[in-house]
Amino acid sequence: MMNRWLLPEDIADVLPAEARKVETLRRAMLDLYQSYGYELVAPPLLEFLDSLLTGTGSDLNLQTFKLVDQLSGRTLGLRADMTPQVARIDAHLLNREGVTRLCYAGSVAHARTPVGSSAREELQLGAEIYGCATWEADVEAISLLLKTLSLAGLNKVHLDLSHAGVLVGILDGQDIAKEDIAAIYSLLQSKDRPRLALWAKCLPTESADALMALTELNGSCSDVLAQAKQVLPKNKLIDEVLSQLTKIFTAASLLSEELELSIDLADLRGYQYHSGVMFAAYVDSLPQPIARGGRYDHVGQAFGRSRPATGFSIDLLTLASLSPAIGRKSAIVAPWINDVELLMKISDLRHGGEVVIQAMSGDTLQTAEYLCDRELVRQGSLWEVKKK
Amino acid sequence: MMNRWLLPEDIADVLPAEARKVETLRRAMLDLYQSYGYELVAPPLLEFLDSLLTGTGSDLNLQTFKLVDQLSGRTLGLRADMTPQVARIDAHLLNREGVTRLCYAGSVAHARTPVGSSAREELQLGAEIYGCATWEADVEAISLLLKTLSLAGLNKVHLDLSHAGVLVGILDGQDIAKEDIAAIYSLLQSKDRPRLALWAKCLPTESADALMALTELNGSCSDVLAQAKQVLPKNKLIDEVLSQLTKIFTAASLLSEELELSIDLADLRGYQYHSGVMFAAYVDSLPQPIARGGRYDHVGQAFGRSRPATGFSIDLLTLASLSPAIGRKSAIVAPWINDVELLMKISDLRHGGEVVIQAMSGDTLQTAEYLCDRELVRQGSLWEVKKK
Repeated sequence: MMNRWLLPEDIADVLPAEARKVETLRRAMLDLYQSYGYELVAPPLLEFLDSLLTGTGSDLNLQTFKLVDQLSGRTLGLRADMTPQVARIDAHLLNREGVTRLCYAGSVAHARTPVGSSAREELQLGAEIYGCATWEADVEAISLLLKTLSLAGLNKVHLDLSHAGVLVGILDGQDIAKEDIAAIYSLLQSKDRPRLALWAKCLPTESADALMALTELNGSCSDVLAQAKQVLPKNKLIDEVLSQLTKIFTAASLLSEELELSIDLADLRGYQYHSGVMFAAYVDSLPQPIARGGRYDHVGQAFGRSRPATGFSIDLLTLASLSPAIGRKSAIVAPWINDVELLMKISDLRHGGEVVIQAMSGDTLQTAEYLCDRELVRQGSLWEVKKK
Repeated sequence: MMNRWLLPEDIADVLPAEARKVETLRRAMLDLYQSYGYELVAPPLLEFLDSLLTGTGSDLNLQTFKLVDQLSGRTLGLRADMTPQVARIDAHLLNREGVTRLCYAGSVAHARTPVGSSAREELQLGAEIYGCATWEADVEAISLLLKTLSLAGLNKVHLDLSHAGVLVGILDGQDIAKEDIAAIYSLLQSKDRPRLALWAKCLPTESADALMALTELNGSCSDVLAQAKQVLPKNKLIDEVLSQLTKIFTAASLLSEELELSIDLADLRGYQYHSGVMFAAYVDSLPQPIARGGRYDHVGQAFGRSRPATGFSIDLLTLASLSPAIGRKSAIVAPWINDVELLMKISDLRHGGEVVIQAMSGDTLQTAEYLCDRELVRQGSLWEVKKK
């Protein structure tokens, strides 16, 4: 009998106390983004599939639950990522000329459990900046991400920078099929040098050497940038990549004293989506990145309007699981009797921020969220709060 | 090109300003429920279909989007209602003996647009009480619903009471097939007296008269209750129905001076789900009820553990659309320059609850949520906030 009510694999309820922690963090983060002037949006759970997957590549397609819309007969997707939705809102609905700062918090679902995770449902929280092509926007995104982690009690953060343009710069001028580029990206990701060397043989020496060098271009920012200047081809694209990384590394290193910064130019996860500087934040207690972000300038173009874009997103449920527990909130117990004085007293206490539980028949006052350590007691004609 | 990015029928984005209003109401309501000692839960978007539909009847089945779980091959449902999920959490996960108060706020989706609505996605907000079989729990649910509406600026409320047990009492002792009962409920709902009379012919005179009388048992509470005592059969079930309605009407009439109360004993919508007193709240600006609630004691039983249960739910998006607009929040504009004094000043202002937008290249400061009426200006070595 019990087993019938099990949930699907990697799908879970968020129970009392934990749900309150998630809610507390959710509010803290949305308030933080508001203090920076971010506007809140809430796109729907379901959209036509082609709209949800625009400009994102095949990974998101495999992650997206599909269903049929009875009203249109078309295929809908249950969102696995809110970023393309927010880009659509910027490009198509708000349609503003200047910079637009948007933030969001909503549930997303994955058809398959993401690598390194044990959850198919997330509470995705994110902030995005549209309309600013320069480094300030990337730095504001990184700054907000670090403050997000800090507000959740995670101050020791490792930030790994990369750039989606580096391989484009190395392969500049070569005629290589899309699938082959995907294969090269995949080999770089796994740092598979022997197989990468086979690909490199088809390239001119300068590109081949640079490609092989990429797998070793990781470590402290200043070292990697200095080395990259030596081993990567000298062209406009690579110059731009290195200049952007230098600017962002310099600005980011001023953001927090506890921040560890590094560069891994072969970490090109999400390259199908990103177009410029990318970053991944790591904390001690989690092997995979706690948050990812970066530039994805071309996504707006897919929605009919080219807009520079950068931002980050993070799963609030994971963040809450790493964040310190919040204590049980003290509560006052009141009897359930029809006494005008009592009801007024209860109302006043609740308005003043207190939790008052009016005990009904069957009440054992057993809760995970509250600690019933006080009670309302009649003193003559008045009701007073006393320790239990 | 534009049309490709249209959303499916009756599905919409919530854009800046409106999304903030929804968020503000969401927080106000969850804080209200917390002040009553309700614990927050967050069940998942997706569950196995049989679990989602337990004890709910066919309406919810038709409303539920189905999809296939790649990991188990089983059918999942995208929730159209969170109440059965919360009942499952109470019965199966928390497994407490005493009273449990739970609240929730989450997105639900409907495969078909509900009658009287123009939205297939809702932000369902609700509060439920488990483990109390007596009237106090129903009154607390009604009281919380009225405070919810009042916090949203809706003070003029009409509450219509009914009872799922009234037809059971009338048909007590008769052997009638489930489908026939469903047909009778449906005719009562549409107050179709001619066709109801055909059914009544198959019943003993007392039940037949009572069934026909039901369609007219609506109006002011005291009148209807007095009349019901005369025309309904005298049995234990009907006595209990009328005694419960009297208690709840009496208690509810003390809750708010502006509350209009009535009874409609033929309004048995949701009878498949409900088991006792039911209520529907109406406000002037909406033809359909803004919120519904009532007792559903048997649902816990379906999850392997019989528990008394009552509560209500409401769509926050509809509530927000009826709630007064909130003004644009005043914001301070700061330049984007690397000045330690400036950055510290900005940080202090943000910590103090101010919105500070640091203008980046391309910023036109055009937002729906904020009013940039002040700016940070350098005065000697200090930065000060000035009116623009």
